[in-house]
Formats: sequence, C-alpha cells, structure tokens
Amino acid sequence: MTRMLTGERPTGPLHLGHLFGTVANRVRLQQSGVETFLVLADYQVITDRESPGDIASNVREIVLDYLAAGIDPDAATIFTHSAVPALHQLMLPFLSLVSAAELERNPTVKQELADSGRSLSGLLLTYPVHQAADILFCHADVVPVGRDQLPHLEITRTIARRFTARYGACFTEPEALLSEAPTVLGTDGRKMSKSNGNGIALRATADETVRAIRSAKTDTDRHITYDPASRPEVANLLLLASLCTGVPPEVIADEVGSRGSGHLKAVTADALVEHLAPLRARRALFAAEPGLVAEILTAGNAHANELADATIRDVRELMGMVYA
Amino acid sequence: MTRMLTGERPTGPLHLGHLFGTVANRVRLQQSGVETFLVLADYQVITDRESPGDIASNVREIVLDYLAAGIDPDAATIFTHSAVPALHQLMLPFLSLVSAAELERNPTVKQELADSGRSLSGLLLTYPVHQAADILFCHADVVPVGRDQLPHLEITRTIARRFTARYGACFTEPEALLSEAPTVLGTDGRKMSKSNGNGIALRATADETVRAIRSAKTDTDRHITYDPASRPEVANLLLLASLCTGVPPEVIADEVGSRGSGHLKAVTADALVEHLAPLRARRALFAAEPGLVAEILTAGNAHANELADATIRDVRELMGMVYA
Repeated sequence: MTRMLTGERPTGPLHLGHLFGTVANRVRLQQSGVETFLVLADYQVITDRESPGDIASNVREIVLDYLAAGIDPDAATIFTHSAVPALHQLMLPFLSLVSAAELERNPTVKQELADSGRSLSGLLLTYPVHQAADILFCHADVVPVGRDQLPHLEITRTIARRFTARYGACFTEPEALLSEAPTVLGTDGRKMSKSNGNGIALRATADETVRAIRSAKTDTDRHITYDPASRPEVANLLLLASLCTGVPPEVIADEVGSRGSGHLKAVTADALVEHLAPLRARRALFAAEPGLVAEILTAGNAHANELADATIRDVRELMGMVYA
Repeated sequence: MTRMLTGERPTGPLHLGHLFGTVANRVRLQQSGVETFLVLADYQVITDRESPGDIASNVREIVLDYLAAGIDPDAATIFTHSAVPALHQLMLPFLSLVSAAELERNPTVKQELADSGRSLSGLLLTYPVHQAADILFCHADVVPVGRDQLPHLEITRTIARRFTARYGACFTEPEALLSEAPTVLGTDGRKMSKSNGNGIALRATADETVRAIRSAKTDTDRHITYDPASRPEVANLLLLASLCTGVPPEVIADEVGSRGSGHLKAVTADALVEHLAPLRARRALFAAEPGLVAEILTAGNAHANELADATIRDVRELMGMVYA
C-alpha cells in the first residue's frame, strides 16, 4: 500500500486556496487507496513568527476542515508534532548528515526568510531536516508537493540516501507527487493566504462567501474573458467557478460575456455556495459532536507514536546505540 | 537540593585527564549532596566524525569508570541521549529562540570545527541548543564547565530567559560551576585526549600505567623543577604525582632534585599505581557483575524519561499545544 505524508502548519482554519490547491487532491488520493498521514506541524508555526497564536483552536478547526473536505479519519492518521517525541529524535542523526552550507542555500528557506522580515532563526534554518523526520519516521512513499517544496523533498531524499550509506537500510527515498494545483487568489487579487487576510474560509457561511466574492477586486472591462496573465482577478473568479462546476473557465467566460463582473461574481458565488454546501453541512455535523476532534487526534497521535518508536528502535540498532 | 547536569561523549573509556580534570570533582559534588545527572551524549559523538564507532562498548566502559571513580549509581541518574525522546523534542521550541547568526558565531563550535578538519554539519552547528535541552529538561541548577564550555552555557541561559519571556516560567537559568581543573598532558606532551591517543586509561593495569609513564616525553635537564610554562612535560609528571598524593608539585620536585626524569617517572608511576589501585579494584568488581551496567542505564533512562516527559508536558501547556 502506498503511504503519503503531508499536512500543514496550524496557523488558522483552511480556506478555499487550501481546499482547491491541496486538500481536495489528498481526498482523491485517500479515496484511491493511498494510506494517508496528515501532520499538524505545530512547532513549525513559530518558524516565521514569535507567537504560536491560538494554536489549539486552529488545530481543531483544521481537523474539522479535513473531515468536511472528505478525509476519512478512520483511514487517515492525523497527528500533531508536539505529541510525537520520537519523531523529533530523528533530528539528531539527520542533522549530522547535512552540512550547514546545504541548509543555508535552500532557496525556499531563503524566500520564507525574506517574506518573514525577521532574522533567520535556528528553527527556520533547520526545518527542512525536521520535515525529513516527518516523512521518514512513517516511511512515506509519496509526498504531494508544490514546486516550492521540492528543495525540501530533495533534502529528505539526500538524508535517506546518506543514512543508508552510513548505517544500512532503514529508509527509502520518497517520491515527490508534484501536483499542478491551481493557485487561488484572494479577494484582493493577491495569493489567497491566511497571512494576507484575503481568504474565504472553508467553514464560512454561504452569506459570508457571497459577500466576500461581491467585494472581490476585478477590473473595468465589462466583457469577461479568461486571461490569467493580464486579467488575474477576473480569471480567478472564473477559476473558482470552474473548480466548483467542472466547466472550463473559458466556457464560463463566454456564458457571462458582456454582462460584466457583477454577473460573473453572482455566477461564482452561486457555484461556490452550491459546491461547498455539502462540505459545510458535514462540517457542522462533525463540529457538533463533542469530543470527536480530541478522539481523532488521540488515535492519530497513538498511531504516529507507535511508528516513530519503532523507527527510532531501528535507527538506534543500526547506529549501534543499544546498551541495555 | 541542588541539581547538577554534566556528562560526556562516549568516544572511548575515560583516562586520567578525565579523572583529575572533571570526574573526581563530580564525585566530590555528589558526596557533598548535589543531585547528579550524567548524560552519555551518544548522538554528539557524530558531531565531528562520521562513525559512532563501538559506542555500546564505550558507554559500558564509561559507566564502569564512573563507578570506579566513586559515583554512587543509586544517587546519580546516568542516562544516554538516545533513550530519552522527549529531551530532543525541546530542540524545536529552543531552536526558534536563537538566531542562526548566534549559532554561527559560537567560538567553541568554531574551534571544534577547525579541529575536526571537516565541513560544518547541521549537528555541530546546533549542538549547543541540544546541550541546552540536556540542562533544562532536568532543571539543573549548576553545570560544572571548563572555560571552553562557557559559550554553550550562555546559550542555555539565553534560551531559558527567552522562553520565560515568551511563554512563562518553566526554566531557571543554570549557573556555571567554573572549575579550574588541571589540564593533564598525555605521554607525548600534548593535552591528554582520546583522539590524541596519548592517554592513560582509568581502567589500565598497574603495569600498563608504569610503562606509559616510563615512555612519557620529558626534557634533557636532569635537575627537576616545577615550571609548567617552560618545562610542560616534567611539570605534568609532577602534577600527576601531586594529584595522587596531595603533596604540592614544587615539593615533589625538590625531593627528586637532581636524580633526573627517570627517578621522577618512578615517583609518579608509584603515586599513580597506589592512588588508582582502589579505583581499579572497585572497577574490576563492578565489571564482573553481570547486567549491572544495563541495570544502571535502565534505571537512569527511566528517571530521565520521567523528567523529560513532565517538562515537555509543561512546555506544551505553556505554548498552548494541548488539544486532547
């Protein structure tokens, strides 16, 4: 059985960028029989900020978002970093297998450093090694990644290779599952992100969704065309409608024609509300179930700990660190 | 009760440099009522070399050396890094509290890097943070250190302070117990060290000790004087004799007078053999007891895990990472 590891930093509830960008794809992979591990990387929240924020609430909301999107908690292992000590222990041997220079020239870390506007912390510098621990502790075969995550996966593959050469077989090199996921823009025309504050949350109400789409930035050309390069905001509304309906964005553009961005917004809002209604109904049901999220995390953490403990046992044996 | 954390990298059995430099001092501290934690830093062995070597044998020999020197295993907690997962988890929050620049400008790391003749690994760069986890996981009050370890203790104190400022009280800043321990030279006149291969092992026989002292480098001046600056090798033999007998090295030098280095070597060898005889007898008794070392490590690891788990529980609570 193929095993996949992916997840996110619990910095806030998921929005439509996550849903269409990655989460829907994970649901498809799970449904096609891929064993699914989802890590809520709580320590990674503080790679680019001082405060972890209301992390307990964020963790809870994301678990509900997963369930809403269709992740089957009985088949998936959903866990938080902070509950799996042996996973972190892998950092020690793994840090010995990479040079400081390799860490420092990671282009994604450099970009995140620039974006954070802060000085480089030890955690930001080393988090790709921590990510290697995530992927290798559970022996994941595939990791769905965006292009910006490829350097991290390369470090993971390098660590697996070097560990094998030095100590013997324990880890296999995971494969990247490069998904050409659509980049969804926020209501202000920038990439939809929690930190840009321009997202439409998966858990939002229909009304909130309609209002957000109505307030979205467009342009002054009343004739609607699908042209992501020169008309990114209009193209984004068409993309969202297309993702919900399965109709190509060009076809939706033709249908709207010269009725302007107001009509386009109505079409997109309708499509979103209809597409998201079953997810949101499911979410409300799960949210009303007392203790459900805690139960899912307890089971996920227990499973993750079982695997991490077994992996550390193997690693200690290969390194000759068995004394008693 | 004051608590002390110290230890070493299990790169080989202890030699007289360890005994007179640090271990005898630890025994005195323990006997004066200081609660003693001794970590065998097995992952730190690979900060400056590729292979951990025969680490299981080294761990066993060092535990026996501790017992020989007078460490009371019923009162001390002797543990190995690799057996305490939650200790390593502290690396995550701690790495977020130091900048990469702070790690890079650590003078001791720079020196160790130069000595290793290798490129800077992620593990060598970050090991002072790992050392902070050692000291803080068990809430040590004092850390006996040599001058070269002061920068590391300063990082530990900084991490404790920053953690408190950001998340609240959990850690107190440990104090350095700067011991002006004598630096013992090896038989070739360089600092006695495992990597220099010039040590006299604590576990050596009386014959081996005598032979090693006989082969020690001296100088051509038959009149023996205590002059560490210009006659380091002769001064070292006097120092060893002094450490064993309690007689000041100047007095021993006067006694030897013009009888030359051959006589000095006989005096020193006699003093060592006599001083070490009870330690070596004790060591042989302990070594003959089947399962003793494993038992000590099992108990020490259990105690260390108990404390590390409790510390991680507190840290998770302070950081808001409690979900279930």
